Amino acid sequence: MGLMRSWVESANAADCPFPLNNLPCGVFSLGAEEPVCGVAIGAHVLDVAGLEHGGILALDGGPLLDVPFWNEVMGAGPGVWAALRARLIELLAEGSPHRAAVEPFLVPLAEVTLHMPFLVSEYTDFYAGRHHAFNVGTMFRGPENALPPNWLHIPIGYNGRASSVVVSGTEVRRPWGQVKAPDQAAPSFQPSRRFDIELEMGAVVGLPSESGQPVTVAEADAMIFGYVLLNDWSARDIQAWEYQPLGPFQAKATATTISPWIVTRAALEPFRTSTPPREVPLLPHLQEPGPMLYDIALEVGLTPEGGTETVIARTNYAEMYYSAAQQLAHHTTSGCAMNTGDLLGSGTISGPTKDSRGSLLEMSWGGKEPIAIAGGTRSFIEDNDTLVLRGAARGDGFTIGFGDCAGKVIPALADPYAR
Amino acid sequence: MGLMRSWVESANAADCPFPLNNLPCGVFSLGAEEPVCGVAIGAHVLDVAGLEHGGILALDGGPLLDVPFWNEVMGAGPGVWAALRARLIELLAEGSPHRAAVEPFLVPLAEVTLHMPFLVSEYTDFYAGRHHAFNVGTMFRGPENALPPNWLHIPIGYNGRASSVVVSGTEVRRPWGQVKAPDQAAPSFQPSRRFDIELEMGAVVGLPSESGQPVTVAEADAMIFGYVLLNDWSARDIQAWEYQPLGPFQAKATATTISPWIVTRAALEPFRTSTPPREVPLLPHLQEPGPMLYDIALEVGLTPEGGTETVIARTNYAEMYYSAAQQLAHHTTSGCAMNTGDLLGSGTISGPTKDSRGSLLEMSWGGKEPIAIAGGTRSFIEDNDTLVLRGAARGDGFTIGFGDCAGKVIPALADPYAR
Repeated sequence: MGLMRSWVESANAADCPFPLNNLPCGVFSLGAEEPVCGVAIGAHVLDVAGLEHGGILALDGGPLLDVPFWNEVMGAGPGVWAALRARLIELLAEGSPHRAAVEPFLVPLAEVTLHMPFLVSEYTDFYAGRHHAFNVGTMFRGPENALPPNWLHIPIGYNGRASSVVVSGTEVRRPWGQVKAPDQAAPSFQPSRRFDIELEMGAVVGLPSESGQPVTVAEADAMIFGYVLLNDWSARDIQAWEYQPLGPFQAKATATTISPWIVTRAALEPFRTSTPPREVPLLPHLQEPGPMLYDIALEVGLTPEGGTETVIARTNYAEMYYSAAQQLAHHTTSGCAMNTGDLLGSGTISGPTKDSRGSLLEMSWGGKEPIAIAGGTRSFIEDNDTLVLRGAARGDGFTIGFGDCAGKVIPALADPYAR
Repeated sequence: MGLMRSWVESANAADCPFPLNNLPCGVFSLGAEEPVCGVAIGAHVLDVAGLEHGGILALDGGPLLDVPFWNEVMGAGPGVWAALRARLIELLAEGSPHRAAVEPFLVPLAEVTLHMPFLVSEYTDFYAGRHHAFNVGTMFRGPENALPPNWLHIPIGYNGRASSVVVSGTEVRRPWGQVKAPDQAAPSFQPSRRFDIELEMGAVVGLPSESGQPVTVAEADAMIFGYVLLNDWSARDIQAWEYQPLGPFQAKATATTISPWIVTRAALEPFRTSTPPREVPLLPHLQEPGPMLYDIALEVGLTPEGGTETVIARTNYAEMYYSAAQQLAHHTTSGCAMNTGDLLGSGTISGPTKDSRGSLLEMSWGGKEPIAIAGGTRSFIEDNDTLVLRGAARGDGFTIGFGDCAGKVIPALADPYAR
């Protein structure tokens, strides 16, 4: 499939992240107006809430867009998702007879503020990248224990904290936490010195599942509304001290930043790709019935305050060992109910080479091998660094983008208990 | 403080769990009517939603009770909580001039169905009982590694799954899951054979905290609206295979049952008690500014299908090493925002003796020493067993109860993927 041309001219450039093929879902505001649902097209946002209110867009069970989040559309299911996409293509395609009616609902992207695109019900983070698990396992437990015995059999995951999920652009304050270096006799409470990123994709659950009823991988895939870029900020020194025996807790609770746009599963269909070959066969209920990963090129940029950006990693979502559909199916095996708005982090996406690692922990090998950036080096994030994740699925003459997933790390509070 | 007498005569019995001193918050329905907020008093529920609607009860910022959950009251803060309690005492006290106006709003407890008392925002479970941590640690990692190095310094916790929290009386279906016994070459997918309870208390967060701003232990205590009984159902065989390195996931996601009544912090004030002496000093930000635990006697009953109940454990909430206020303060150290409706499980409450252990895993020492029950033995839960947690804070001539926290375990699905 090639570029689908739109009368919104800026959407037709091969490197535009928001062609008619994409139509990602976000929430925007203009000036002091209330946030509303929008869809990115070229250099514009289409005010779909306005279109629905104006009767140009009608959805079964609607209105679904009269709230500043996409959850109502997400929960309405695949029929509504397909109808919405078909109608937007009809309205925005080159030669559409609806251009005059629709054009007043376009707002320049440069003029809007973007907000959280959906209400996060619960957030689960996985650990499902082969290279990342091996790298981190080697650093935390040694190479002989790097990959836990269960790793090749189930997508290892843990529940994260939904209240910490923020949209791109939100500043992230360096956390305090309890840490203990191996050479310290007792722990201390201090600002994290090893604050890090995790380059991930997030799958957004649209259709809920029932309590007590596991779902198949194919059913899980059909429940996914779309994908976002996701940066699971991680305090490595807090994590090292707290994570045994019950997993990361405060190390991951400061913030998780997502891209402002949910790219729908429909937009990513042309980029489906299989997970890598299994090293050991999966049990039947976790096997892929078809390609469930996506070929999405990913990169991380780091910009010091007042400096220039260095791209510190380039990798691809196809590096994951488990797909989001497999993760979601595993998530329901115990009968756990999944809800509209649940967010599943893929796990850190590292490739096999040093320049394709998805965390500074891996890039600098625990701080022992600082990486070069424009004008300096980095082991971990320094105050006022801005980190940006970018993703692109590249088709024949078009690009599917997510918008930047960015966050600036601001200094820790001088005294967290000063009132 | 002694019994506060009410004109609701059944509330004045020394063993009644719902005297005027208590006034716990629940949600009930009568027949086919919609669920509404109620407060237990003696053998009755007081329809407080009706009282508010009728103008007999007025709350700042109200109406707050016109929804079938307590979250709006919980989020309104300590001023409203105190005003509500004071007004209810005024209305229900012996000799109250309001009796005639209030009496029509009493419904016999025996006639109502009880529902979830609040919407759970997020659920966090801790591992903060000294005896439980030592027992389980010994079984999973050997006595020399039983207590992790961090355990005496921070309340170890992990994020659980809010979608799995259900109210007392909800049947719990035995889960399937991936397991691997040490003598198996490869894992298998099967119904859990080691399904278990965890006897816990749950703290219900009323007041939210701000993102980026840790709270002190005293502030945390003031954020807590009340407490429930909590049974964190656990599949030990699934847990043993999955929990390294990132903690329990599907093993704890089948269900978590809570009591139908939230007992407010105010009702528990006379029962405050300090945590046990520290084995090593806590860092200042986690130290107790005053007694933050409660003297609440707890017990667990097990009833086989068609059989009689055996009380299999008796313990006390005061056995915890960390209080809910300490746990909540720790939860915010990284800047994690806490929300109205967040639920914090205390961790399993085991005492020092075998008959005071809060899980079958401990009682039967991993299944090696089955316990005796009326008409048989148990290592773990068998199909159609009903488990009931009960709690009581006993004052001078009165008792504060939570209502039963009960669940019957029904057989696993024959084939979880049959459609």
